[in-house]
Amino acid sequence: MKILVLGGDGYLGWPTALHLSAVGHEVAVNDNFARRGYDVEMGVESLIPIQTLDERLAAWAEVGGQQIKSYVGDLCEAEFVHQMVRDFQPETIVHFAEQRAAPYSMISQRHAVYTQTNNVVGNLNVMYAIADIDRDIHLVKLGTMGEYGQPDIDIEEGWIEIEHNGRKDRMIYPKKPGSFYHCSKVHDSHNIEFGCRIWGLRATDLNQGVVYGADTEQTKLDDRLATRFDYDAVFGTVLNRMVIQAVLGHPLTVYGNGSQKRGLINIVDTVECIRLASETPAERGEFRVFNQMTETMSINQIAETIVNEFPGEATIEHTENPRVEIYDHYYNVVHTALESLGLKPTLLSTTLIDHLFDVVERYRDRVDMAAVRPTVKWAQTSSELPRTSELAQTK
Amino acid sequence: MKILVLGGDGYLGWPTALHLSAVGHEVAVNDNFARRGYDVEMGVESLIPIQTLDERLAAWAEVGGQQIKSYVGDLCEAEFVHQMVRDFQPETIVHFAEQRAAPYSMISQRHAVYTQTNNVVGNLNVMYAIADIDRDIHLVKLGTMGEYGQPDIDIEEGWIEIEHNGRKDRMIYPKKPGSFYHCSKVHDSHNIEFGCRIWGLRATDLNQGVVYGADTEQTKLDDRLATRFDYDAVFGTVLNRMVIQAVLGHPLTVYGNGSQKRGLINIVDTVECIRLASETPAERGEFRVFNQMTETMSINQIAETIVNEFPGEATIEHTENPRVEIYDHYYNVVHTALESLGLKPTLLSTTLIDHLFDVVERYRDRVDMAAVRPTVKWAQTSSELPRTSELAQTK
Repeated sequence: MKILVLGGDGYLGWPTALHLSAVGHEVAVNDNFARRGYDVEMGVESLIPIQTLDERLAAWAEVGGQQIKSYVGDLCEAEFVHQMVRDFQPETIVHFAEQRAAPYSMISQRHAVYTQTNNVVGNLNVMYAIADIDRDIHLVKLGTMGEYGQPDIDIEEGWIEIEHNGRKDRMIYPKKPGSFYHCSKVHDSHNIEFGCRIWGLRATDLNQGVVYGADTEQTKLDDRLATRFDYDAVFGTVLNRMVIQAVLGHPLTVYGNGSQKRGLINIVDTVECIRLASETPAERGEFRVFNQMTETMSINQIAETIVNEFPGEATIEHTENPRVEIYDHYYNVVHTALESLGLKPTLLSTTLIDHLFDVVERYRDRVDMAAVRPTVKWAQTSSELPRTSELAQTK
Repeated sequence: MKILVLGGDGYLGWPTALHLSAVGHEVAVNDNFARRGYDVEMGVESLIPIQTLDERLAAWAEVGGQQIKSYVGDLCEAEFVHQMVRDFQPETIVHFAEQRAAPYSMISQRHAVYTQTNNVVGNLNVMYAIADIDRDIHLVKLGTMGEYGQPDIDIEEGWIEIEHNGRKDRMIYPKKPGSFYHCSKVHDSHNIEFGCRIWGLRATDLNQGVVYGADTEQTKLDDRLATRFDYDAVFGTVLNRMVIQAVLGHPLTVYGNGSQKRGLINIVDTVECIRLASETPAERGEFRVFNQMTETMSINQIAETIVNEFPGEATIEHTENPRVEIYDHYYNVVHTALESLGLKPTLLSTTLIDHLFDVVERYRDRVDMAAVRPTVKWAQTSSELPRTSELAQTK
């Protein structure tokens, strides 16, 4: 199958491209290197050193024996997207190419607007390219569990049957996103569902949990194939950050009381989920939603797991929560669809955490502990207001 | 009360500003004249001639004896929005300033992207200005009944209590928008609801039905105070368009089988709803939603009402539906909140339609019948693809 992976230079896009290539698909990747740009902006770096896209592709040709074509460009440029889709003629487009950090979207007005514009426009351009060029192309789009927020009822997979005043309908599951980034994914979901209705697009929206882990079967083959590993407060995710704190002898920081729950998924399951979704496409006109997560844990449970498994001393410290979220909440998520397609979940296990401890130990000199401290606060808007002073034309 | 009306030069923004000024509020208006620009782009004009904003404001000072301040600028420029809010220090911001035509958003990829970017970014900038400058400012935001689509259960006012697997939660009413424009309003609603949660904003989202009518108590006072009256297939709404067809002796065109239903509201009720919502603000942190419509009719019923009331001969013709929508559908909308605040609905009556016939008769020489024919088709994307040929950088 010809599969185009958008955002194929990122944390998950790159290992997904390798995984799909390894199982025999003809893969191309697209990226505009925005993610590497955020590193420069934030003054941080991936814990694990990564190569340029060209070097990665050359290494994969050598180690994996497969060619992966690359398209360098920005999805916000409609012509570029059309050209790319016409040139590669994919059967499936896997779309990872969005700004994907909630804290980044909350830094300032500018970052919120950038995140929503970048994500919504890029996705619209991909939808238009499919609608114009070949409506049989299956769009596999990365969403997030954070679209749902913390409802007091079970979280279904994207749709819910609602009975109300004696009548019933199958409706989009109501969303309560937790950041302007999460809002952008809700916007994408609505645009795609509309595209399925009017153009008969076939789409799979993958509402993904918090991903953890540093490598996959393919990235392990050669240091040049490594994917990024972010631990900073903006792009790093909770488990990866806590592993670093343990290894470096810092207390594991839990935001707030730690009872807030997250859906989790191992990186090796992520890449497998994308394969499964791609190889079993949605029907024409179908807006299919899967909850791409394998287990639920509270932040406290994640911290305790790390403390228990860490071979040395590790302690937990509760700090102010930069986010606005509720504690001690109900959280019960349906996630059976991907398992019914064949996913065998890799649950959070000692083996994995041991391996993560080793990875961090190997690169411990690259850690900048200052970057782990959260500075972006949800309830504040102060950090970066418009500064220059063009006066409004008043009369 | 100090009220800032964004989009105060438009079909509804202008009469709203006059109405609020007439009842004694201190009013300022903002506009960037984008709506007048669409006329140039589409090659059409308001049926009723309108004056420039400066001329309108001067006429109102003369006729109404009240000053209305104006801020000319684009809400997509964050600095401008901040400056304006700092300068005027409103207690209420009424936000009409969005691209508001579903067909316009469906013309092409570029129009869809423009509509969503313009609407979402402008609204985000307004939210940030409120959050930065004064979180007590009440945001009264215009949404649309088209956010809900055509669900098979009753349409509640923005929120719905859902019982599922033995548990209950009050959730955002699920949305099924009918165009990229309607999607943009759904996006705004999600962003605002999030802003209420994290910043304690106070917001009223008004999901408005199809507005009809040509004037209000204030716009009638002087020709220079007239508001625009659009009848073209892109910006004109169904009732206004059919009145013109009747007066000019053309068959009234009903798209599809005509059983599709719409929520309707008279322009005089719109301006009153805005007054009621402004004078009874939402609580801090409250995302309040009102369905701003007063009656439900099918397209056939609207056409039949006009045929019955028109003094001459009028016939109905069914044509291909450019939209993708369902027929013979359930449609039962709750709209009691504004009535409980004091709205006395002006229902579709002989008096009103007679008056509309007169208005059209007066300006019949300005009608361009070619502009009434729909050319934008929901299921097609063909009209305006990227044309130049910058090649993707492929390797």
